Amino acid sequence: MEDQSLKPIRCKAAVCRTPGEPLTIEEIVVDPPKAYEIRIKIICTSLCHTDVTVWRAKSVGEKVEGYAAGDTVVPNFMGECDSCESCLSEGTNQCTSVPFTMGPGMRRDGTTRFRDSQGAPIHDLVAVSSFSQYTVVDVNQVVKVHPSLPPKLACLLGCCGGTGVGAAWRLAKVQPGSSVAVFGLGSVGLAVVQGAKMCGASKIIGKEFGVTDFVNPSQLGDRPVSEVINEMTGGGADYSFECIGVSSVMTEAVRSTKPGRGKTIILGLEMDGQPLCLPSFEFLFGKCVMGSLFGGMKPKTDLPILAEKCMNKELELEKLVTHEVDLEEINTSFDLLLQGKSLRCIIWMDKLHFR
Amino acid sequence: MEDQSLKPIRCKAAVCRTPGEPLTIEEIVVDPPKAYEIRIKIICTSLCHTDVTVWRAKSVGEKVEGYAAGDTVVPNFMGECDSCESCLSEGTNQCTSVPFTMGPGMRRDGTTRFRDSQGAPIHDLVAVSSFSQYTVVDVNQVVKVHPSLPPKLACLLGCCGGTGVGAAWRLAKVQPGSSVAVFGLGSVGLAVVQGAKMCGASKIIGKEFGVTDFVNPSQLGDRPVSEVINEMTGGGADYSFECIGVSSVMTEAVRSTKPGRGKTIILGLEMDGQPLCLPSFEFLFGKCVMGSLFGGMKPKTDLPILAEKCMNKELELEKLVTHEVDLEEINTSFDLLLQGKSLRCIIWMDKLHFR
Repeated sequence: MEDQSLKPIRCKAAVCRTPGEPLTIEEIVVDPPKAYEIRIKIICTSLCHTDVTVWRAKSVGEKVEGYAAGDTVVPNFMGECDSCESCLSEGTNQCTSVPFTMGPGMRRDGTTRFRDSQGAPIHDLVAVSSFSQYTVVDVNQVVKVHPSLPPKLACLLGCCGGTGVGAAWRLAKVQPGSSVAVFGLGSVGLAVVQGAKMCGASKIIGKEFGVTDFVNPSQLGDRPVSEVINEMTGGGADYSFECIGVSSVMTEAVRSTKPGRGKTIILGLEMDGQPLCLPSFEFLFGKCVMGSLFGGMKPKTDLPILAEKCMNKELELEKLVTHEVDLEEINTSFDLLLQGKSLRCIIWMDKLHFR
Repeated sequence: MEDQSLKPIRCKAAVCRTPGEPLTIEEIVVDPPKAYEIRIKIICTSLCHTDVTVWRAKSVGEKVEGYAAGDTVVPNFMGECDSCESCLSEGTNQCTSVPFTMGPGMRRDGTTRFRDSQGAPIHDLVAVSSFSQYTVVDVNQVVKVHPSLPPKLACLLGCCGGTGVGAAWRLAKVQPGSSVAVFGLGSVGLAVVQGAKMCGASKIIGKEFGVTDFVNPSQLGDRPVSEVINEMTGGGADYSFECIGVSSVMTEAVRSTKPGRGKTIILGLEMDGQPLCLPSFEFLFGKCVMGSLFGGMKPKTDLPILAEKCMNKELELEKLVTHEVDLEEINTSFDLLLQGKSLRCIIWMDKLHFR
C-alpha cells in the first residue's frame, strides 16, 4: 500500500484572502507533516474569534510518539510538551518549550504546510487552521480523546467550552457554596456558568443554563451593576468573570466582588484596546484580578477530564450549539455571530471531502 | 487591693490636634475597657502611615476570654474573631464579624475610650491608637505573644514587618527557587525581601538585606525597568511587589512578571489616588494582580508563627530599625520619615510613664 503520509493532500478549505471579506472556498494543498507534527482530517470545527476543532489523525511526522493514524484528537491553540518547567509546574498553562504565538506559521520553524492551487503558501491561524478538510498541527497541540466522544462536544471543549469551564475550575478554583457573577453570556460566559455549577457554586448570577439569579443591565437606570450584585450577594460575589472584552465592564466586574477575597477573571480581550483601570484602593482590600489563555487549562492534562464530564452529563456543552452548517456555508456562520444570532455554530467537513 | 480595671487611667499621649501640625504631648484619660475590650500598657510603638505597637495587657472587659492582665500582646489594625465565615476560611484575612474600618472610634460601638484633661473625647486611629501610654483595643485585634519576644520585633511584626513578610508568604505564596522583584525598598519592601528569602526565593531583585540583584532606576535612561527585569530573569519575575504607591510603578511591576504565571502584589496605597491601569492584554497571557491589608495575614494565626521565626533568626526584622526615640520626641520620628532618613523609628513609652 502506498504510504499516503509522504504525499501532499489536495482538499477544500475556507481561505481568508482579504481581511473583512467573506472567506473563499478553495482547493488547497496540505503538505505532509514534518518532525513533531501530525496531519489530521477534520470532522467538524466551530466558529470563534479563534478556530478550534475536532479531527482525526491521518499521518504523523518524525519524532512523534504516542499518536497514530486513526486516533481521534482535539487540536488546541495552546501547547503542552509535558517536559518543560512550565508544563511540569502547577502555576501556568503556558508551555515554554514551544510557546504560544499568533502565527502566521508553525511555531517551531515559522513555515506553513498549506499551499494554494498555484503553489503559493497560505498562512496558518494560531498554528491550528481548522477551516480546512486537512491540517497539520504540532504534536504539542494535539490531545487524544476517546473515539466515542461526540465530535461536536470535543470541538467545543477545544475552544469556548474549555476556556469557560477551565476559567471557573482551574483558574478561579471556584469553591462549593460560593457566589459567582458572570458578565457576558455568550458561549464563553455560559461555559463559565457550567464550570461554576460543576464546582458547586450555590449562587450564579447571569441568565441561563443553571444560572440562579439574573440582572438585566437595561433595567438598572443609573445604578452601577456592581451595586446591585453587591446587594444580591450580601457584600459582593466570591468570583466574577468578564467574558465580553469591555474595559468598563472589567472594572464593574472587579467592583462586584467581595472585599478581602474577591477574584475576578478577565476572559475577554478588550475590543478597543482600552486598558483595564481600577481604583488601586480596591486592591488594598484584598481583591485579585487574573487572566489566562484557555482558562488556565493544560490541554493534554485537563481536556480528557472534561471530556469525561461531558459524556456523563456533568457538563452539557451541547446547549451552546445553536447552528450547524457545511464548510461551503461557512460565511453564514460569520454573519450569525456578528449579528448576535448564534452562540456556537458547528461547521461540518465530512459531507464535502472529496479525496 | 483596689480593682484598677474599673478606674480611668491618666497618662501621656501624643495627640493630633491639627492635621499636618506636630503632635502635642498631653495628659489624657483612658477609660476602662468595655465588653470585648482589653486595656493595655504600651511598651513601645513605631511610626508608620498607620501605628501599631507592642503592649502589655492591663485590664480586660466583660466577655473577654483567653487574655489576662500581664499578658504580652501585639494589637493589630486587623481583627480575627476565630468564628466568622471569613476567619474560618482560607481565602481572606478580613474578619466579617467586626470588620476593618478606618475609625474614628472602636469598631463595635463607634465610641472612644480616650478623653483629654477637660473631658472632651479624643478620636481613635484604626481602633488601635498606640501613641499613648495606655490604650483600649478590641479583643479581636489583640494577639498574645511569648513574653521573651523582644518588644521592638513584636512591634515591627504588627505593622510593616507582618505586612511585607505576609505578602510574600501568605498572599503570593512565593515558591522555593523562584524569582522576585521588589519595587520600593522602604521598610515594607525590605520585609517583603525577607519574606521571599524565608520562602526560598533564589533571585530577589532589589537593593539590600538578602537581595541578590540590584536595579538602579536612575541608571536606566529611557528603558522601562520592566524590560531590564525581564532580561535579568529570562522572561519576567515569578512575583513582583509594589511597595511605594505610585500608579506607573504598579504598571511596571505587572509588566516585570513572567507571562503565564506572574503574580503582582500591590502593597502601596496610590498616593495621588490614581487608578491602576493595565493593558488588558497582559491578563490574557495569564497574569495575576492582587492586594490585601496586612499582607493577607490572619493576625492571631500567623503573627505567633512569624514571632518564632524572628526569635530563631530566620527573620531579621531588627535590621529595619534605624532610629529610636522617646514619646516626647515623637515629632522627630515624623521628620525623619518624611525626609526619607529613616526606615523604622521605634518610639519607647516606659521611660515616661508616671502612674
